[in-house]
Amino acid sequence: MMLPELREKVLDANLEIQRQGLVLYTFGNASGIDRKSGLVAIKPSGVPYERLKAEDMVITDLDGKIVEGKLNPSSDVETHLLLYRSFPTIGGVVHTHSEFATSWAQAGQPIPCFGTTHADYFRGDIPVTDPLADEEIESDYELNTGKVILRRFKDLDPVATPGVLVSGHAPFAWGKDPSAAAHNAVLLEYIAKLAFRSRLINPQLGEVSAALLRKHYERKHGPKATYGQREQEAKAF
Amino acid sequence: MMLPELREKVLDANLEIQRQGLVLYTFGNASGIDRKSGLVAIKPSGVPYERLKAEDMVITDLDGKIVEGKLNPSSDVETHLLLYRSFPTIGGVVHTHSEFATSWAQAGQPIPCFGTTHADYFRGDIPVTDPLADEEIESDYELNTGKVILRRFKDLDPVATPGVLVSGHAPFAWGKDPSAAAHNAVLLEYIAKLAFRSRLINPQLGEVSAALLRKHYERKHGPKATYGQREQEAKAF
Amino acid sequence: MMLPELREKVLDANLEIQRQGLVLYTFGNASGIDRKSGLVAIKPSGVPYERLKAEDMVITDLDGKIVEGKLNPSSDVETHLLLYRSFPTIGGVVHTHSEFATSWAQAGQPIPCFGTTHADYFRGDIPVTDPLADEEIESDYELNTGKVILRRFKDLDPVATPGVLVSGHAPFAWGKDPSAAAHNAVLLEYIAKLAFRSRLINPQLGEVSAALLRKHYERKHGPKATYGQREQEAKAF
Amino acid sequence: MMLPELREKVLDANLEIQRQGLVLYTFGNASGIDRKSGLVAIKPSGVPYERLKAEDMVITDLDGKIVEGKLNPSSDVETHLLLYRSFPTIGGVVHTHSEFATSWAQAGQPIPCFGTTHADYFRGDIPVTDPLADEEIESDYELNTGKVILRRFKDLDPVATPGVLVSGHAPFAWGKDPSAAAHNAVLLEYIAKLAFRSRLINPQLGEVSAALLRKHYERKHGPKATYGQREQEAKAF
Repeated sequence: MMLPELREKVLDANLEIQRQGLVLYTFGNASGIDRKSGLVAIKPSGVPYERLKAEDMVITDLDGKIVEGKLNPSSDVETHLLLYRSFPTIGGVVHTHSEFATSWAQAGQPIPCFGTTHADYFRGDIPVTDPLADEEIESDYELNTGKVILRRFKDLDPVATPGVLVSGHAPFAWGKDPSAAAHNAVLLEYIAKLAFRSRLINPQLGEVSAALLRKHYERKHGPKATYGQREQEAKAF
Repeated sequence: MMLPELREKVLDANLEIQRQGLVLYTFGNASGIDRKSGLVAIKPSGVPYERLKAEDMVITDLDGKIVEGKLNPSSDVETHLLLYRSFPTIGGVVHTHSEFATSWAQAGQPIPCFGTTHADYFRGDIPVTDPLADEEIESDYELNTGKVILRRFKDLDPVATPGVLVSGHAPFAWGKDPSAAAHNAVLLEYIAKLAFRSRLINPQLGEVSAALLRKHYERKHGPKATYGQREQEAKAF
Repeated sequence: MMLPELREKVLDANLEIQRQGLVLYTFGNASGIDRKSGLVAIKPSGVPYERLKAEDMVITDLDGKIVEGKLNPSSDVETHLLLYRSFPTIGGVVHTHSEFATSWAQAGQPIPCFGTTHADYFRGDIPVTDPLADEEIESDYELNTGKVILRRFKDLDPVATPGVLVSGHAPFAWGKDPSAAAHNAVLLEYIAKLAFRSRLINPQLGEVSAALLRKHYERKHGPKATYGQREQEAKAF
Repeated sequence: MMLPELREKVLDANLEIQRQGLVLYTFGNASGIDRKSGLVAIKPSGVPYERLKAEDMVITDLDGKIVEGKLNPSSDVETHLLLYRSFPTIGGVVHTHSEFATSWAQAGQPIPCFGTTHADYFRGDIPVTDPLADEEIESDYELNTGKVILRRFKDLDPVATPGVLVSGHAPFAWGKDPSAAAHNAVLLEYIAKLAFRSRLINPQLGEVSAALLRKHYERKHGPKATYGQREQEAKAF
């Protein structure tokens, strides 16, 4: 069996989003890439999390050709692959329909940075894509979902903004490996929940200062990180 | 004992809505039909889920005559039966007072299609019935609850819209068998929760495009379904 | 030890509100009365639910004199006793700070009957008391909490309305015995949750029709009840 | 190993905020002080709660010098220490990003006293600090977080108001020992949840009367406390 270690990591990331309450039934999927071989391991489509095993993961190349696996890959595989082809620094991708992040995605609004919990993980808004045009929906829908994300990231750094809301759909998150991608998906959901309530308390609420945004982001990330013990530095990316 | 297999399926559907947090105490009920014999198995009224066994299910014919069983059937049995008589393609019916779907039913508003999670299961609004007239409440209330659903479905396909909100009351969902009906009830609740929050984030929010609605519905249903492994195709109906 | 059976019932009612998520730490208390002897068993003040035993219940007479028990009774005992003295048909009282009912009590608003879940248990609004006057707070506060409830029930039947919101405080519920009181407290919380969300979906929402209110209440209560199996009839009161 | 008893208490307070659902992953931290020696025990930074042991707690003096411990202390240690230096009656400090309290902190609004649950623990508003100025963020950020709290408490008694919302960040709570600090953090979260919903039900809602505020606070605190059994009196502070 190919890539046993990557398979385990991808399995773990899938189980983590389930443990953290981000998935209903078989919704959601996590993948990881082995950059050396250019091969991707991804959750099979529609298999219950309780039965998921490392050997069920489907191995594809970066063009979507199945290299190993008897099951169909997640129906969102084309979106994952385009993200891997376009963001060379990422090693894992997670897609969920988690409750609060999906509510923001459906509302078609970016999540403003209302506080330090957000600033610790996302350096600025959690962006929302444009809605897909009718012709983008009608053919190559999953690939076009990836393209609409890329259009939104034209001027954004996917390391400083490790996730996005697809308008009318749901969030995607990523990270340096599958575990970091799952971690960012969990945080994105938590941030979405806090922001939902903050806005209801104060509908006129604006963003935190740029200084606070920078401070918190850098406290957890980059060369001067002061959070955690040494081996965890910059864990989320 | 008659219909042992159907009894097990109906028991499972009842336990599934409880496991997924859709019921408080003895609220909610699931039923299933054996189309060959025209017999229906339904949860008995007011029996705690923890004690429910396959042999407790009550067997009635399509007119409500009890054919086998010592317990009273669910007080909503007449509504279930009218749905079976009117929608020949359905094989299971589920009624709950689940939190978010019931809140929309009480609000007397249909749930607009705000995103793909909705579009995957319901092809358009989750409709709401008219309120029952006073005389419809005073006699044959449960039967009239079914009739007010049928009035709402005059121009709707119960396969593409596998559930409804009864105004001032709560949701009913159905599917090709009891398990699919329970699955659709769980999804209806999840969709209601997402829609509730999306509307609070953006009170002016409109529906997704017709193209997205069609795409997602067809990705999970019908001849060109691309979701899941082969044996699950079109599972929810 | 006096009244061992009543002690067990009161213990069970206290544990039930904890199991159903209505209490944080030691908040909340349930009591029951033995009408023959006029003695009341009530939870002791501030004892963790995990350690609560039947023998910890405090027995008082209807004037609050401790007849048996080494612990202090719940600090709300005077409110319970006034309810027992004034509502001769009730056999149990439950007080909680449950999340949604308390939010309505704090908001100082009655819970309108928005649907059948409500109508099944409360025949009309769940009423809210007036705020206590300063002098009612300063002395005999707990007794005056009971008095402000009685003022609100001058024209209400405590059997058809088995609970109340004390303005700026929290709910009290009651029933024919401690178990029914706990059941009504759990339902009051569920109804409060549904109503909170229904109102947010539709801020202009009005009540259901009088016919629906009557129908649902009578389906579960009184001589023509059609819900449940025989032995449960009129269980909630 | 120094201060084994304090280490256990601090461990317990950290585990308590996790048990009560106030923390996601490694968020949050609790500390305690031994006033005799002036030494503080605090949670290490970024260690999962499941693996946390009493010997992992980091011992520092009041100036932040690590006296015992191989791990880095919580990145918020400077805030904790300033609180201990400034509030001589407190023995424990807890910081969380708990859901509802953080939403109010992000909204930049104090939590008004809407009811007795609040009045039992906080004698008045739960205050919110000013946002930190840019230069306060850029250097000595954690110390300045403490300073902005102290500015807010110039005219407040930290015993009657055992917690605060740091604007755009999250809550801090304290108490006479680590256990009381954790207890107050849990209550702050519960109060924040009730207040969120009360305000959505009634956006014009004002505070409870001064008489009710005084009564409830004094029922649980101070020489005339009537809540609980003797050994628990004034437990929360």
